[in-house]
Amino acid sequence: MRIVLLGYGNVAQQLVRAFLQSDLVEVVQIYNRTPLSHPPISQCTTKLSELLPADVYIIALPDDVIAEFSDKLPFENRFVVHTSGSVAMDQLSAKNRRGVFYPLQTFSKNRVVDLKTVPICLEADEKKDLGILKKLGGCISEKIVEITSEKRKKLHLAAVYLNNFTNHLYRISEEITETESLDFDLLKPLLLETAQKMDSLSPAQAQTGPAKRKDLKTIKNHLQQLTEAQEKEGLDPSVAQLYELFTKSILTTYHGKKL
Amino acid sequence: MRIVLLGYGNVAQQLVRAFLQSDLVEVVQIYNRTPLSHPPISQCTTKLSELLPADVYIIALPDDVIAEFSDKLPFENRFVVHTSGSVAMDQLSAKNRRGVFYPLQTFSKNRVVDLKTVPICLEADEKKDLGILKKLGGCISEKIVEITSEKRKKLHLAAVYLNNFTNHLYRISEEITETESLDFDLLKPLLLETAQKMDSLSPAQAQTGPAKRKDLKTIKNHLQQLTEAQEKEGLDPSVAQLYELFTKSILTTYHGKKL
Repeated sequence: MRIVLLGYGNVAQQLVRAFLQSDLVEVVQIYNRTPLSHPPISQCTTKLSELLPADVYIIALPDDVIAEFSDKLPFENRFVVHTSGSVAMDQLSAKNRRGVFYPLQTFSKNRVVDLKTVPICLEADEKKDLGILKKLGGCISEKIVEITSEKRKKLHLAAVYLNNFTNHLYRISEEITETESLDFDLLKPLLLETAQKMDSLSPAQAQTGPAKRKDLKTIKNHLQQLTEAQEKEGLDPSVAQLYELFTKSILTTYHGKKL
Repeated sequence: MRIVLLGYGNVAQQLVRAFLQSDLVEVVQIYNRTPLSHPPISQCTTKLSELLPADVYIIALPDDVIAEFSDKLPFENRFVVHTSGSVAMDQLSAKNRRGVFYPLQTFSKNRVVDLKTVPICLEADEKKDLGILKKLGGCISEKIVEITSEKRKKLHLAAVYLNNFTNHLYRISEEITETESLDFDLLKPLLLETAQKMDSLSPAQAQTGPAKRKDLKTIKNHLQQLTEAQEKEGLDPSVAQLYELFTKSILTTYHGKKL
């Protein structure tokens, strides 16, 4: 299978790395607006007019430029997919056959992810093209799922809570430890176990803490600490607001009433 | 070292399990208000009057009963510690020597935690007693830290964000996937990688998502989806409120301004 990557950000880099390890996939070219400083293959271009023939063109660009970019492609009736969680398939230009190849994972610079266990969420206009994506996905992951644009949008929304917001809670915890010159590393085993618990427990089974056990005395005490840190250390007020809103939400979930 | 456990909830069970594996610690007795159904040692009691002599008495009871319980102990000048993150050491009755032995981890029923990497936060009135706790902690963990009540309180507050609130985000993600009959397991690799990233990146380095890149179009779209899910699926309004507050907080953190 001959593949062309359009864009070379975090997602594209991980995909190329995985494709290069497969005997069934040939990455024939990488297009990028600016020249790559460390190209993983020799065929790279910055000109759309130089794009080579391929079985699948994978657009791995920011969400807000995908539609416009797909319009500019200088060919028709070829198979073009994007890798975004939140962009609907029909945002792609209809002059080509369309599809989605969405690896449900978070990718950062300088951090290699093993794609084997990462679900690849697929969608295509035509059955034949879905078959191509299944074969392609199977080369890099053991978890291939067919998912509509509508469902993928929901999955992406859930992922925002699970990854973006969770990561911001890490940042807030770090900030709180910093106000007392405590080492954030002390919290790392807790951080990891919180995630690993999900192997064997549901979120509801794993929920603990003052709000879950309706310990209003501890909650009041925590809010007091937060107010103090706001006044003395300049802690952002949104930290205390999040405490109140989470507490309200956990109380509603497990006790059916608000504070 | 002879130890008596007072209470036998999640924390006490994990501690006893670890102590029993050490040659240097002898768990001489477990006190519990009600008889244990599966006692791990033969010496168990439900009567305070039957407590045996020991080097350390470990109170592993809910936060709100620790002070009162320590008052009721029928002896003086012995060494009594609690295992709570948020209760100050001086909440313990002053008739005994006081200390704290706080394992910074989340413990659930039916889930064994390896205490080796778990920080044990120690505090004691007397230097000699701190030495006892260090020795005791060293038998089950490689990470022993001396921490004041004041700092421990902050650590516990940080842990609430890191564990309790993070876990509630897992619950919300699960809820969002359920509205579309999607399998929550699809998100598990993302959930785990979000935590594992903290091995090599700081929370600020790892932050991604619409709020981080100031993608107002996606944010608006997500809020629309949440409003719809509220109306159609009865999603709790706190879910959308959390989305707004997190977005505001992330924008403030990385862009220095509010929505």
